[in-house]
Amino acid sequence: MTDLNADYAAAGFGGRLAFGTRPALLIVDVVMAYLDRASPLYAGVEHALASNERLVDAARAAGVPVIFTNVVYEPGGIDGGQFFRKVPALKAFERGSPQGAFPVTLQPLSGELVVSKQYPSAFFGTSLASTLHAAGIDTLLITGFSTSGCVRASALDALCHGFAPFVVREACGDRDVRPHEQNLFDMAAKMAEVVSEGEAVNLMRSTR
Amino acid sequence: MTDLNADYAAAGFGGRLAFGTRPALLIVDVVMAYLDRASPLYAGVEHALASNERLVDAARAAGVPVIFTNVVYEPGGIDGGQFFRKVPALKAFERGSPQGAFPVTLQPLSGELVVSKQYPSAFFGTSLASTLHAAGIDTLLITGFSTSGCVRASALDALCHGFAPFVVREACGDRDVRPHEQNLFDMAAKMAEVVSEGEAVNLMRSTR
Amino acid sequence: MTDLNADYAAAGFGGRLAFGTRPALLIVDVVMAYLDRASPLYAGVEHALASNERLVDAARAAGVPVIFTNVVYEPGGIDGGQFFRKVPALKAFERGSPQGAFPVTLQPLSGELVVSKQYPSAFFGTSLASTLHAAGIDTLLITGFSTSGCVRASALDALCHGFAPFVVREACGDRDVRPHEQNLFDMAAKMAEVVSEGEAVNLMRSTR
Amino acid sequence: MTDLNADYAAAGFGGRLAFGTRPALLIVDVVMAYLDRASPLYAGVEHALASNERLVDAARAAGVPVIFTNVVYEPGGIDGGQFFRKVPALKAFERGSPQGAFPVTLQPLSGELVVSKQYPSAFFGTSLASTLHAAGIDTLLITGFSTSGCVRASALDALCHGFAPFVVREACGDRDVRPHEQNLFDMAAKMAEVVSEGEAVNLMRSTR
Repeated sequence: MTDLNADYAAAGFGGRLAFGTRPALLIVDVVMAYLDRASPLYAGVEHALASNERLVDAARAAGVPVIFTNVVYEPGGIDGGQFFRKVPALKAFERGSPQGAFPVTLQPLSGELVVSKQYPSAFFGTSLASTLHAAGIDTLLITGFSTSGCVRASALDALCHGFAPFVVREACGDRDVRPHEQNLFDMAAKMAEVVSEGEAVNLMRSTR
Repeated sequence: MTDLNADYAAAGFGGRLAFGTRPALLIVDVVMAYLDRASPLYAGVEHALASNERLVDAARAAGVPVIFTNVVYEPGGIDGGQFFRKVPALKAFERGSPQGAFPVTLQPLSGELVVSKQYPSAFFGTSLASTLHAAGIDTLLITGFSTSGCVRASALDALCHGFAPFVVREACGDRDVRPHEQNLFDMAAKMAEVVSEGEAVNLMRSTR
Repeated sequence: MTDLNADYAAAGFGGRLAFGTRPALLIVDVVMAYLDRASPLYAGVEHALASNERLVDAARAAGVPVIFTNVVYEPGGIDGGQFFRKVPALKAFERGSPQGAFPVTLQPLSGELVVSKQYPSAFFGTSLASTLHAAGIDTLLITGFSTSGCVRASALDALCHGFAPFVVREACGDRDVRPHEQNLFDMAAKMAEVVSEGEAVNLMRSTR
Repeated sequence: MTDLNADYAAAGFGGRLAFGTRPALLIVDVVMAYLDRASPLYAGVEHALASNERLVDAARAAGVPVIFTNVVYEPGGIDGGQFFRKVPALKAFERGSPQGAFPVTLQPLSGELVVSKQYPSAFFGTSLASTLHAAGIDTLLITGFSTSGCVRASALDALCHGFAPFVVREACGDRDVRPHEQNLFDMAAKMAEVVSEGEAVNLMRSTR
């Protein structure tokens, strides 16, 4: 079969985005639904949680702002629109559900922004793009769950809103390695830089 | 390996969206760049073009509105933002380029809307959602190129904006069958119904 | 001086929007900041509160959905962007402030949606348009505070998102009658129908 | 009657926005419909056109990017939604209409962006915010027609998208001085800095 990387490069995909001067770390939906073995959405992504813990430490040490997202619906999903109909699993995120909580090892600090959303993208139906632009942020390191869902949607919208998205491979996770890898491929080709945790830490350190 | 379909269904993905009462057919970027063998973006998707031709005939016969999108940038991509930097191939869509033209066999009729966009989604940075909502459209049959790029981005945004997206399998295409199939899988799981051309034709006929 | 109404009509403003078949009542920022005499934002709009109370009763009786908005910022306004800088009074809406609370006489019922926003428009940076479109809502009766601020911004965005906005005169209020009246004039000319409370009640009753 | 300026200042409106380091000049709908005496939309705003001519010269001399907007609808306003229904005068902006043309004295140069829109705001249903953010623009000098319509809508959305909006008094115009002045008052209170042409020129010169 054709080598996909070579084929895409020849076609003019996979250009390089520059890492800007004011990054932030965007942690998408790292919540108990994906980490609790009793949850239908449990994805076996403890390794990615650990990566997020290290990235948050590095961001805070470097003075890089950290933003967390979660998913919150009113009872019955009255604010969930067609997405709530398409994915019955989303009832795990009705307000107050323990599956919507952040893990004890990855909690927002006072002064760190939590953006509650109803759709896959961290930007759709939220004021996040405005907050970031008003703060002069130009680059986003993006992590979280799931790679094929909310991470990809957020990376695409980050690009569209004018940010340079850098998706951190080890800090993303999905319930199966196939959609994880395939979506990292698509993102690298068309919407984001895909970097390792080590590269991400170095990029944050080099900001100051 | 795990059966992905069974695994996803057990987790609560892949719910069913209802086909509404007022559909439209949204044809995403069926332009020469993907059909001209001399183009770097040529994708070998003549079969999907033929499917689009049949679907357009069926839509017009059933009185279902047809909307076309294309991609248009000002010279140098000054309105292309980070996307134009990430995908150098997009210079094929600078205003006036023959690669941005619709094929002779799939031309908009007078009175059919053409939405020119700068980003993957037919909705991002366009007034398409407003046009469709003001017209009472509730459901979108979505086709075009490429499955992993602008089709998927448009299907996701359609869902987020409150439409029921129905992606027509044979009428979408990509430069490689792997991202084509993988993205149809992701769409069916999380953001759209994936239907055959025959089902799409029947759904349009049943509207009246 | 020129009669403004005649002049605008001759120029082609002030067309009529049709009241649709599925309305909702959108109550914008009817919160204590405008009703508590100790608040810097106190606007002397008790009469408009009373009108909202009657409209909510009529909506519930007619089965018309009621949506409430409020304004909520994280401490320091980190999610308030440029708007928080422009209007220092907005610190009244930091999370948990009593000035951001709904009055005891106009409380959302269980199952009624509350949309928390950071900008004037009920639609900007929220998922409200998606929620309403997915529910098939086509028309919005709009009330609240202030006429020249969040009511007008919401009416304009309602129009832009494809809804027919009907602003209820007596149920809107501002800290001074001049901007109240001038903004009702602008809205009637360019973006909304302006109706009386009685007309609004009749329109809701006629829906069923 | 109460002095509005003192009353609003005491309430906490009218804070000051800082002029950033990367401004652009946004010229909203300076087109023949408002300048041609035969047009129903003619507004007697030749003085504001002259101010725009001087501002464009100053911007180009200072290396400040200039962006023009116009309004363009497909025949019948099929992409005009509820706005086209509300304002019958908008048929002046069907594609190809001479009333939608820029005046000979205020033409975009090659390489200057023209954003075609369907709604009052320069940002609604366009990719302008993305273009500006990707280019690092943080501040907008805003001019054009009409003050109470597209200028105000654009100023509000500029604020909401994270830009600092500076509206240039003499370079805006409306068909009547009353809505012109009242809307400048509202903008200064809640969404923008209102500056004179001289201040605007000095701000642009000081950028370099």
